[in-house]
Amino acid sequence: MITNQIHLLRPKSGAGGSPIDGVSCLSWRFGVETNNVIGWTTIPEECEGYIGHYMLGSEYRKDSEVVTNEALLYAKSLNLSNHGKNVWVFDVDETTLSNLPYYAEHVFGVEPYNSTLFNEWVSKGNAPALPESLKLYNEILSLGIKVVFLTGRTENQRAVSETNLKSVGYHTWEKLILKGASFSGKTAEEYKSAQRKELVNAGYRIAGNIGDQWSDLLGTYTGDRTFKLPDPMYYIS
Amino acid sequence: MITNQIHLLRPKSGAGGSPIDGVSCLSWRFGVETNNVIGWTTIPEECEGYIGHYMLGSEYRKDSEVVTNEALLYAKSLNLSNHGKNVWVFDVDETTLSNLPYYAEHVFGVEPYNSTLFNEWVSKGNAPALPESLKLYNEILSLGIKVVFLTGRTENQRAVSETNLKSVGYHTWEKLILKGASFSGKTAEEYKSAQRKELVNAGYRIAGNIGDQWSDLLGTYTGDRTFKLPDPMYYIS
Repeated sequence: MITNQIHLLRPKSGAGGSPIDGVSCLSWRFGVETNNVIGWTTIPEECEGYIGHYMLGSEYRKDSEVVTNEALLYAKSLNLSNHGKNVWVFDVDETTLSNLPYYAEHVFGVEPYNSTLFNEWVSKGNAPALPESLKLYNEILSLGIKVVFLTGRTENQRAVSETNLKSVGYHTWEKLILKGASFSGKTAEEYKSAQRKELVNAGYRIAGNIGDQWSDLLGTYTGDRTFKLPDPMYYIS
Repeated sequence: MITNQIHLLRPKSGAGGSPIDGVSCLSWRFGVETNNVIGWTTIPEECEGYIGHYMLGSEYRKDSEVVTNEALLYAKSLNLSNHGKNVWVFDVDETTLSNLPYYAEHVFGVEPYNSTLFNEWVSKGNAPALPESLKLYNEILSLGIKVVFLTGRTENQRAVSETNLKSVGYHTWEKLILKGASFSGKTAEEYKSAQRKELVNAGYRIAGNIGDQWSDLLGTYTGDRTFKLPDPMYYIS
């Protein structure tokens, strides 16, 4: 069982990022989450402590819960007549699955992204679920909405991604869309917009769309409503 | 002189909203600022203390500064060839001017919006500048970009708005666009999108767009890049 790993990483001190660590890190995070601070490659070095406590403490989880609660309220309010073709798009990393065990060992984004090391971590298939997203996923399914996973992970990571998703509780989906070679060099926003367009052209209605990056949620065919989960660890354009 | 009023309202205790006031208020604010929590009419009653400390303490100002610093960095990076037709759109309330003295007396959004009382406050013309926006305004002008104020204030508030803007340091502008009767009943997003379309049709390039509400920044003709200032006190769709 690895689903509790995210809990085990909580620091003993508990509190979700004390202002003592620096109000400027608080404001930097505000700037990131509101899509003001864009195009960055690493978090400010002096914010490692603040971001680490934020991610491992209760605040990250509570922020996630506000988002998924709002998403569920919205989903329940929908008048779904287009039976069988309503989908909810979930991003994978830091949305459906959490790579927090990896990032906790790689100073929460202070180090530049290392694709070799990160892909090694992905290949283990050990990423826990983000519990709030797993709850939303189950409730979305129970409302008769189908789930589409749309991820920047590449096609060669399909098998391990499927195994990982199933092992932590995501047992079914309409589609798992991974990044094919034809999108190499495209931004996440371009790739994901193109894939959502295909969904819409295939007759699906994208009732909702949730991700941790603004590039999951901006662009075209974004869905009837979008939901932004927290992620102060990395930026993908 | 009223430009320092925003400082005088700072509580003696200083700190920008302690987590002790409730992590849930912190997360509610995250949800609001990321456009996840929408369509609300009042802030949660239990968050009055948290929001009040946030607004009157240093955190609101530091959050604003991250945004305007980012905006300035972006503005300076622009290659502006279209001389004389580059504009930056500024919203007015909680962007250019601050109504914090009013909201501090009206429990920071716990009370439902009262247009009579708020318009009385506006008619006094005593709103201080948001200092970070005033600094951005001056630097935008010095880059040769013209300023357009686009506000939900109505035409009958033109004279007092002009006087107020000038009295706190906004001495020049290309246009001050107020909400005319023809937009009565339209959302802010509809009204502002229509007005920005007129700007673009008139040959202007909207290099940047800054506001405290997502309805300032979403819709159409939003500008080359948008900047979201903090505002956890009220929501305008």
